[in-house]
Amino acid sequence: MAEAARRPVFSVSDHTGMTAEAFAHSVVSRFDSVQAVYFTRPFVDTPAKIAGVVAEIDEMAQREERPIVFSTLSDPDLQAVLARCDGLVIGMFGQSVQDVSAELGMAPSRRVGRYHGIADAASYELRLDALDFTLMTDDGLGIDHYGRADIILVGVSRVGKTPTCLYLSMHYGIRAANYPLDSADHSGESLPATLVPHRARLHGLTIEPRRLHAIRTQRRPDSEYATLEVCKREVARAERILRAERIPLIDTTSRSVEEITATLIEATRLVRRVT
Amino acid sequence: MAEAARRPVFSVSDHTGMTAEAFAHSVVSRFDSVQAVYFTRPFVDTPAKIAGVVAEIDEMAQREERPIVFSTLSDPDLQAVLARCDGLVIGMFGQSVQDVSAELGMAPSRRVGRYHGIADAASYELRLDALDFTLMTDDGLGIDHYGRADIILVGVSRVGKTPTCLYLSMHYGIRAANYPLDSADHSGESLPATLVPHRARLHGLTIEPRRLHAIRTQRRPDSEYATLEVCKREVARAERILRAERIPLIDTTSRSVEEITATLIEATRLVRRVT
Repeated sequence: MAEAARRPVFSVSDHTGMTAEAFAHSVVSRFDSVQAVYFTRPFVDTPAKIAGVVAEIDEMAQREERPIVFSTLSDPDLQAVLARCDGLVIGMFGQSVQDVSAELGMAPSRRVGRYHGIADAASYELRLDALDFTLMTDDGLGIDHYGRADIILVGVSRVGKTPTCLYLSMHYGIRAANYPLDSADHSGESLPATLVPHRARLHGLTIEPRRLHAIRTQRRPDSEYATLEVCKREVARAERILRAERIPLIDTTSRSVEEITATLIEATRLVRRVT
Repeated sequence: MAEAARRPVFSVSDHTGMTAEAFAHSVVSRFDSVQAVYFTRPFVDTPAKIAGVVAEIDEMAQREERPIVFSTLSDPDLQAVLARCDGLVIGMFGQSVQDVSAELGMAPSRRVGRYHGIADAASYELRLDALDFTLMTDDGLGIDHYGRADIILVGVSRVGKTPTCLYLSMHYGIRAANYPLDSADHSGESLPATLVPHRARLHGLTIEPRRLHAIRTQRRPDSEYATLEVCKREVARAERILRAERIPLIDTTSRSVEEITATLIEATRLVRRVT
């Protein structure tokens, strides 16, 4: 295998830079042996700021491998300045905005991107309301609020319920609660009575016991809770209960929070409240 | 002003679809008068699945305005099938991957994108560790853990501390705590004694009192807490304390969580622990 080449990668944006970063990572991660070093330069929206970024790129081009520069600048004048730097500049908005413009028969606005902006007050409130709901109903808390839940995730401790709920609320405005299936008050083989009235909105998360054992050991080494034996027993019981109730299950073993979320949205056809 | 044209917009991906969505929103939001209706089709990674998506797009093209289709498919064969649908197809990976490939002198992998994937176990642990930290130290809790904090946000209730901390931990793996400046135990004009040893890691959030009044009213209508008078007083006091201590301040009034986060990362040069 070839030695990993260290390569500076810039994401330049007139707004948060988050779309530019996603663009950069998506493209660069296609090249396995590149050891990318990422730099994000957000809020680059004036001639002075773009001049500063170009100077930084040019200086780095002297010292290191030629930088690769991903840009989501929407102002064509600023983009033209960036295009003259010593890096390889890849603009997200060149051809694609032109194509969409031709299709729609209208000119694009020059204004910086609204995506990841505050959008409108109503959307902001929905998002914060969902986040409040999730924090209030985390880990079996606030069950008297379940009537307002869009979805209730169930599963053993450390299967990934809390991060997934926070992701759903923060990014989709979805009110997501979660309930631990291994809570002390429940050791039987049936669905906890608390959950029965909300059965239609339950979704299970499960995990391979070995992975759970590793996660719990990281958190509480040498506890009984983290032993492989306990992990196996709890996962098997949770799966028996959820399967018997025909509650859909997602395996989180080798999935990131984003992957669990996207899988869940697809499976449930839950609708995004905010964009 | 022209009447808003309703237009279906698809984001098609062989992975979570989140980058494709960001791409679609960034481009389409440049066209003010388009009323876009977004559809995301994630995990499209087989000939059967792409055929299903093409059928759906073609069917919609019959009934509605011609769909605009953003794609982050990395397999050129699947992309070629998509390109023959009746929508306008815009691929993120066509030219940009070719340009990077030429620059690097290596061929791209055909494998689906790793971005938003689980990446590696170490990165997963860092992210969950940061999230645990943030939940444990939310709203003035867990101050004995402040030694491990990367940043501690301070400000009045509802200024945006919790969502920003959650965003920092979830997306950057940064251990972010937050402390309310209007806690009952602190009514003086100086920095709470608890915070003094951690002064170098403090960052303030502030907000226009009228906006705070609107947010608090939404949450607790008719409470004294939500009155404009109390909002004005609390914000003025928080700003006096933070300015006297030369603690940097970010105004959250018209900023989304993403915008606050990006501004904070830029101001503090905090380093991302995970990508």
